[in-house]
Amino acid sequence: MRMYDLIMKKRNGEALSEEEIRWMIRSYTDGEIPDYQMSAMTMAIYFQGMNTRETADLTLAMAHSGDMLDLSDIPGIKVDKHSTGGVGDKTSLTLTPMVAACGLKVAKMSGRGLGHTGGTIDKLESFPGFSTGITMEAFKKNVQTIGLSIMGQTLNLAPADKKLYALRDVTATVDNMSLIASSIMSKKLAAGADAIVLDVKTGSGAFMKKEEDAVALAKEMVSLGNHAGRKTLAVISDMDQPLGNAVGNILEVQEAIDTLKGQGPEDFKELCLTLGSLMLVAGRIATDVADGRRRCEEAIVSGLALKKLSELVAAQGGDASYVEDPSKFEKPAIVRDILSEEEGYIQHIECDEIGMCSLVLGGGRATKESTIDLRVGLILHKKRGDMVHKGDALATVYAADEATFEQAKERFLKAYTFGKQQPEAVPFIKQIIEA
Amino acid sequence: MRMYDLIMKKRNGEALSEEEIRWMIRSYTDGEIPDYQMSAMTMAIYFQGMNTRETADLTLAMAHSGDMLDLSDIPGIKVDKHSTGGVGDKTSLTLTPMVAACGLKVAKMSGRGLGHTGGTIDKLESFPGFSTGITMEAFKKNVQTIGLSIMGQTLNLAPADKKLYALRDVTATVDNMSLIASSIMSKKLAAGADAIVLDVKTGSGAFMKKEEDAVALAKEMVSLGNHAGRKTLAVISDMDQPLGNAVGNILEVQEAIDTLKGQGPEDFKELCLTLGSLMLVAGRIATDVADGRRRCEEAIVSGLALKKLSELVAAQGGDASYVEDPSKFEKPAIVRDILSEEEGYIQHIECDEIGMCSLVLGGGRATKESTIDLRVGLILHKKRGDMVHKGDALATVYAADEATFEQAKERFLKAYTFGKQQPEAVPFIKQIIEA
Repeated sequence: MRMYDLIMKKRNGEALSEEEIRWMIRSYTDGEIPDYQMSAMTMAIYFQGMNTRETADLTLAMAHSGDMLDLSDIPGIKVDKHSTGGVGDKTSLTLTPMVAACGLKVAKMSGRGLGHTGGTIDKLESFPGFSTGITMEAFKKNVQTIGLSIMGQTLNLAPADKKLYALRDVTATVDNMSLIASSIMSKKLAAGADAIVLDVKTGSGAFMKKEEDAVALAKEMVSLGNHAGRKTLAVISDMDQPLGNAVGNILEVQEAIDTLKGQGPEDFKELCLTLGSLMLVAGRIATDVADGRRRCEEAIVSGLALKKLSELVAAQGGDASYVEDPSKFEKPAIVRDILSEEEGYIQHIECDEIGMCSLVLGGGRATKESTIDLRVGLILHKKRGDMVHKGDALATVYAADEATFEQAKERFLKAYTFGKQQPEAVPFIKQIIEA
Repeated sequence: MRMYDLIMKKRNGEALSEEEIRWMIRSYTDGEIPDYQMSAMTMAIYFQGMNTRETADLTLAMAHSGDMLDLSDIPGIKVDKHSTGGVGDKTSLTLTPMVAACGLKVAKMSGRGLGHTGGTIDKLESFPGFSTGITMEAFKKNVQTIGLSIMGQTLNLAPADKKLYALRDVTATVDNMSLIASSIMSKKLAAGADAIVLDVKTGSGAFMKKEEDAVALAKEMVSLGNHAGRKTLAVISDMDQPLGNAVGNILEVQEAIDTLKGQGPEDFKELCLTLGSLMLVAGRIATDVADGRRRCEEAIVSGLALKKLSELVAAQGGDASYVEDPSKFEKPAIVRDILSEEEGYIQHIECDEIGMCSLVLGGGRATKESTIDLRVGLILHKKRGDMVHKGDALATVYAADEATFEQAKERFLKAYTFGKQQPEAVPFIKQIIEA
C-alpha cells in the first residue's frame, strides 16, 4: 500500500477502505508516513469529507494506536464524561463526586491541557498534597473502595490522535466534523468506559459557535460511540457566556465545592444535574432521568456528594480540610472589583475574551511549558440579561500584581455589550442527543 | 506573516496577495516553511484554484528564487522552446540547428530529466567527446560565433520550483493547471529568453491526455509568459502515438540528422517546421509564418541546417564526422524485428507503453541514479492507420541482451490495437495558441 495512492483516492472523492485507514494510521504513528503526506491527506479530507463508516474506522484505528485501558475488573457499568471545553468549566469537580455518591463507579483519566485555565488535574492539585500521578493499582483500588478516582494521563492513549492533532493544528485542518469527532472519541474509547456522556458546548466561548454545528458534532460522536459498542449520549449546553461565575483554578474549585453544598450558580448546577442524571441512567443506577435527577439532588442535600469529594482528596494524598473550609485556599496580592463604566442591560459577553483575562492573569497555559498561578482569576457578578448601573461591580479580579490586573481589566470591559432592552433569555440546556 | 494564516485563507477560497505569495515562496525555499505546511497549501490550491494574477505572482516568485540567466549581451531576440514531453521527442536536435541556420541566436539550457529516454543533453552526448558541461563564457561565445549553444543546467534556476515539484510529486498535487503552468514557466523565465515557443502535447503519451486540457494549459502558459514581458506562443501537437519512428537516444539522434537532410518522418518534420517558423517570426527574422516555413525548408534543402549541427558538435568538443555518417554510431548486440501476430489496420498505439519499452531496454532513467544505455531503443515501421499483415515487421528493436529484448517485445505487442476499418486520420498539429 502506498500513501500516495490513498491521498489521490481521497482527493478524487472516493472512500478509503477499513484496511487502508488502519494501515495509514499505523504507518503514520510508526513514522513511516511523513507529515507532509499526512497533511495533504487531512486537507483532502477537509474538502472531500469522510462517510460514517470511514469516520468510525478512523476512530477505532486511532483508539487502538496505543494503550487501551481495561476497567473490566471493576464491577458495574463505568460511565465516562467529556466536555468540548469552554470558559469556567469546572464540571468534573462537582459532577464526579455527586454521581459517585449515588453509587456509580467513576474511573476518570484527565489531562492538563492548554487553555484559559488549567485542566481538571491542575484544579485538583489546588488541594495541598493532592497527587494525580498515582499508580494504576492505586487508581483502581480507589475506584473499588470509595467509588471514585481521577488520575493524570500516564498511559499512552491514542498516540495517533495526539500526533495527528498536532499536525492539523498547524496546517489549518482542525475544523472538519469527521476529524474532530474521531479525535475526541478515539481517546474516550481508549480510556475504557462502558458508557460515555458528552457535553458539547455552543456559543461565543465554544469551539462550535453555531448550535447546528454543535448538534452535528454531537450526533457524529454519539453515532461513533454506539457503533463501537459504548452507550453514548450528548448534551448541547450554552457557552455564549462563562459557565457559572468563577474563572480561574482555585476560584473554580471553590465554586464546585459551593455547588456540592447546594449553593452554586444556577446554570452550573443545572448542567451538573443534567449530566449526572444521564450518567446514572447510563450506569443503570437510575430508572430514568427524573429518578437520576432526584438521586443527584439527594446526594447534594444529604451532604454525601461533598463527603465523596473529601474522600477523593484524602485518598489521593490531599488535605481534605480545604473541602470543609474553602476559605483556607491561598489568595493572590490583589483582590479588586472591576466597576462598570456603562449602564444598561448586558446584551452579550464575549466569552473567549473572559477566558483571555484569566490567561493574562497567569491562570492558564499559553504553551505546554507555561506555569500556572492557581490563585488568580475572576468572579463574575453580572451576566447576560442583568441590569447594571454605573459603578456597579461587574466582577472581582484575583491578580498577582498591578500590571496583570490592568491588562485583564482593559480586556474585560471590552468584552461586555450593554443595551436598553433586556435581551430574551436563551435556554441553557439546548438539546439532548441520544442514538 | 504566518503560513498557517495563508493556508486557512486559501482553504477558505480567498486569493493570496502578491506579497503573501512572494513571502511564502521565499520562506519555503529557505526552509523556514516546513514541507507539511506547504503540502497542505498545495492541496488547498488543488481544490480552490488560483486566479490568473495569483498564478502570475507564483510564477515570478519561483523564477526569482534562484539565478536569472542574463542573455542581454548577446545581440538580437533570443527565442527559447519548451516541450511538455512525450515519447520519441527529439525535436530540439533538429529544430535548434535549423533555426540557427536561419540566423536566430539559440542559447539553450537543457536538462537530463527522467523518462523513457534521456533528455537532449544525454542525446547530444551520443557524439563522442561532446560536452554540455561548458562554462557560461564558452556558452555565450558559441552563441555569438556559430549562433547556437546547448548547455546543461549548471545554474541554480528556479530552485523553489524544484523543491515544490518534488513535494507535489509525492502528495498527489501535481495535476493542477496553475501549479503545472507556473512550474514550467518559472524555469523558462529564469532561463533568460526574450520569446518562448511552447510545444504542448496531447494524447495517450502526453501528460495532458485530453486536447481541451492541453489547450487550457497552453493558454495559461501563454498568458503567464506575455504577462512577464516575454512574447509567448504555443503549439498543440499530437502525442497519441510516438513522434517520428525512433525511440531511444542514438536512434533519435540519427532520425534528427535524417530530418535535417530532408529525409525524416512526416509528422516529426511537420512539427519542426511549425515550431521553427513560429520561432523565426518571434525572433523577427521572418515576416510571417509562411515566410518562416520557407526559410526553414531552405535551410534544410541547402544543407545549412545540417552544417549548423556539425558546427555545434565541433564547438562543444564532439566528433562531427558522426553528423556526416550516422552509421558510425555504436549498435547494441541485438538488432531484431518484432513481427506482427495480428492482421488489420492499426487503430491505436498505447504511446506510454512504447516509452516503457525503451525504459525496459535501458534507454531511460527510472530514478535519478540510473545509468542510460544510449544505443538501445526501437524504430517503428508501422503507425496508426497503417495496414499490417501477419509476419510484417512492426518495429526493429535495439537491445543489449535477450532478456530485455523479450521484455520489450512482450510489452510492445500489447500496445497495438488492430481493427478491420482504417481509422480516421487526426490532424497532427491541432492548434496554435497566441496571446
